[in-house]
Amino acid sequence: MKKVPSGIVPVIAIDRYAAKPLHRQIYEAFREGIVEGCLRTGQRVPSTRLLAAELGVSRIPALEAYAQLLAEGYFESRVGAGTIVSRQLPDQGPLFNRRQRGRPLSAPVGRRMASKRSSVLTGEKVMRPRGWGAFELGQVAIDHFPHQIWNTLTARHCRDDSARSLDYGNPLGHRDLREAIATYLGAARGVQCEADQIMIVNGSQQALEIAARVLLDPGDSVWMEEPGYRFARHVFKFAGSKIVPVSVDEEGLVVSRGIKRCRNARAALVTPSHQFPLGVTMSAARRLELLEWAERTGAWIIEDDYDSEFRYSGTPIASLQGLDRYSRVVYLGTLSKVLFPALRLGYVVIPPDLIQKFVAARLVLDIGPASLCQGVVLDFLREEHFSRHIRRMRSLYGERCRTLIDCIRDELGSGATITGAQAGLHISVILNGIRDVEVVERAARQRLWLVPLSSSYIAEPRQGFILGFGSADVGAIPKAVQRLRNSLSAAPQ
Amino acid sequence: MKKVPSGIVPVIAIDRYAAKPLHRQIYEAFREGIVEGCLRTGQRVPSTRLLAAELGVSRIPALEAYAQLLAEGYFESRVGAGTIVSRQLPDQGPLFNRRQRGRPLSAPVGRRMASKRSSVLTGEKVMRPRGWGAFELGQVAIDHFPHQIWNTLTARHCRDDSARSLDYGNPLGHRDLREAIATYLGAARGVQCEADQIMIVNGSQQALEIAARVLLDPGDSVWMEEPGYRFARHVFKFAGSKIVPVSVDEEGLVVSRGIKRCRNARAALVTPSHQFPLGVTMSAARRLELLEWAERTGAWIIEDDYDSEFRYSGTPIASLQGLDRYSRVVYLGTLSKVLFPALRLGYVVIPPDLIQKFVAARLVLDIGPASLCQGVVLDFLREEHFSRHIRRMRSLYGERCRTLIDCIRDELGSGATITGAQAGLHISVILNGIRDVEVVERAARQRLWLVPLSSSYIAEPRQGFILGFGSADVGAIPKAVQRLRNSLSAAPQ
Repeated sequence: MKKVPSGIVPVIAIDRYAAKPLHRQIYEAFREGIVEGCLRTGQRVPSTRLLAAELGVSRIPALEAYAQLLAEGYFESRVGAGTIVSRQLPDQGPLFNRRQRGRPLSAPVGRRMASKRSSVLTGEKVMRPRGWGAFELGQVAIDHFPHQIWNTLTARHCRDDSARSLDYGNPLGHRDLREAIATYLGAARGVQCEADQIMIVNGSQQALEIAARVLLDPGDSVWMEEPGYRFARHVFKFAGSKIVPVSVDEEGLVVSRGIKRCRNARAALVTPSHQFPLGVTMSAARRLELLEWAERTGAWIIEDDYDSEFRYSGTPIASLQGLDRYSRVVYLGTLSKVLFPALRLGYVVIPPDLIQKFVAARLVLDIGPASLCQGVVLDFLREEHFSRHIRRMRSLYGERCRTLIDCIRDELGSGATITGAQAGLHISVILNGIRDVEVVERAARQRLWLVPLSSSYIAEPRQGFILGFGSADVGAIPKAVQRLRNSLSAAPQ
Repeated sequence: MKKVPSGIVPVIAIDRYAAKPLHRQIYEAFREGIVEGCLRTGQRVPSTRLLAAELGVSRIPALEAYAQLLAEGYFESRVGAGTIVSRQLPDQGPLFNRRQRGRPLSAPVGRRMASKRSSVLTGEKVMRPRGWGAFELGQVAIDHFPHQIWNTLTARHCRDDSARSLDYGNPLGHRDLREAIATYLGAARGVQCEADQIMIVNGSQQALEIAARVLLDPGDSVWMEEPGYRFARHVFKFAGSKIVPVSVDEEGLVVSRGIKRCRNARAALVTPSHQFPLGVTMSAARRLELLEWAERTGAWIIEDDYDSEFRYSGTPIASLQGLDRYSRVVYLGTLSKVLFPALRLGYVVIPPDLIQKFVAARLVLDIGPASLCQGVVLDFLREEHFSRHIRRMRSLYGERCRTLIDCIRDELGSGATITGAQAGLHISVILNGIRDVEVVERAARQRLWLVPLSSSYIAEPRQGFILGFGSADVGAIPKAVQRLRNSLSAAPQ
């Protein structure tokens, strides 16, 4: 039996002056609640004592009503569990066809118009993680997360927190955590900021949403990398922006092409440390060119630094934000990759003169971040679990990355071009002469989940796959690559 | 000294082929980091062993560089804490004027245009809780929350959770929690729904945001109660909606007036159980009239059932959603009032044919709710702590409400009209012949925080105050009401 919440007193309207006796009113209210599906089978009902107190009546009518409901089989008595709605009744939904009361649950009729903007989302097939292991995108090795340490910190926090920690907090997030993140970003990412510029968000997805709403009006243009991050595209489309795809070469976003296509875009979204999905690093020249364009035209740059904690080779890449002399860059990062996705925490570094607008938008969207986990993350950072975990994971992911590349070279040979292996949790494999979406479908029938590279393009897509290795055990990678090859070889050339 | 995160290896680019020796490169990188403010005073730096490993160099140059940095006073050695950035250096910001490198932090120049839509928010003064006790609005008695039980449940959850609980979850929220909430809402609020229709949101504010984006396009009209909830107004303004204020009388929203003003509004936002801020209950006739209008015109109804768990007198009021035969009602509720605000959890009951669109919008906004607290809330519900806590709080709040009313009658006499005392965590006091905003300012100088009733109106405001008593101890209420009277009596009549 499902365990259901109990002790809830149902909505019963008692009329002391009605001709109908009180016990009858109570009886009918319960019967109707059960028949209508408002009360569910197995659900515990309040004791007659509690019910009488709640309704402000004596216990006698409650006892009479319960006796009748028991006798008729609506209620059932269980030793040790009090009185429950009988489990003999059908479990799902209302007992009688709700349609008899005119309420069709499954197929409502009439004009049912949702907003036009909401259909820009459903037009594109949303691809979310459907599995685990190779080659799921956006997944991390949660089985290697120091769960024990985290739980100890959580328990400690619960103990130490005062009642005031249950109150609404700062919409920007805990002050101490923002201080710690500012320090971390300064050292590890070369970000120049004060804690006051940092807002804790529910994952970097929310930071994108706030930035889109605060920086752009409907109809405004935004440069997006081509290929680029689909979920970011959704944010800007939903916010009414005009997407201007700007191609990416081996130096990152081709700024001159952006200027040619749409000089007066209001913003540019870039992933300069590790371009998504191709993985190139934006060159210093391009960075300066982009910053100059922004300053000249009054545009904003949104830097999504989503996974550069994990760098396996080459020199470390500092953030674009650290180069910005004009406070044009909105910098965002996530804790989903370095800690775990269910945490739903990220951060955004806001140019000083935009802080107030970001706060106003945040208050509208959801008032602010939840409290508990912020404190735990702070301790995790302060006590060096954070830096230790990053180091351990970097070595783990580095091995996964190398294994994946070796396997691809072995299985797919020189026809496959691998990009983006210096950092992060995915690589891209470019394969000419295939149709990636067809291969994806074929692979899915064998429960191999692939993300087609073409889905990252708006126009003139290249074919291939974005292969995540964050949740792929080294031992499982060779088999997965073989299955990928098999799905490929069945493809029409 | 502030405790700062440590063990983070700064961004140092080493060039093995440069003429400059490695130890010099390391020295300069640290010095620059400190001077630029990327590294902060008191911050621990990595050990030379760790640094050498990270940079892929031998330990010798690292040791040399550290020796020099120590000698020059950039670093400092602390017994038991390793090497830190010297605390003798100025603590705040960069050591040298950042402007020398051309980066003005405080006063950026040039064209700095944010979106027009973001200025609809800053136009209105945002009033958020600034204090505690009487008469703060939206606050609850968090000092009476069973913190111990909650912490025990949290600790248990941490222990029992598997690694998979760290993964991305369902954007709608945990299945079991949605099941429990559906059962609770069916019994306690007469809501007719299946668990599949429920989405766990980050507070009901987020539910409003999703509803506004999914149901209305920019320029579409929405009926809002006049007076009504300011934060809801912000959501719809930010989403580009046209607000149509529809007045409220003693039977709730005057539907006929709404039809006259704007028959083809796309949606109506109502608080039928306990109107905000006046506290009236929408009559059965008005409910049916509203539902009929929605069905006839293809509009949606958003029912915000924000505080009806706490009812002190009169018959219990079932939800409008439970009456809806057409699946026109989007029902929303919050756990901020019955549990605590820092939880940031609420729920929305979605008409079946809109579920997919709500999910698509949620994925864009922030992917989904965080995991941990959902499990704790579920146990809190299942183990009857929830119903017990509601009962205890209802008695506590009921006493506060009665005390407040008695004091107001004593101090303000018959000139004050009190409304909305049957339920919830606030009452409204209507006072003719005053200018409430002036009284509010005067009271604020005595640290008495009042919310003017006029702020809930768009046009033709009535004067008075919305007085919250959720966080007001019974003993503190008389004094607070006296201070309110004092602020009033200094008012020009």
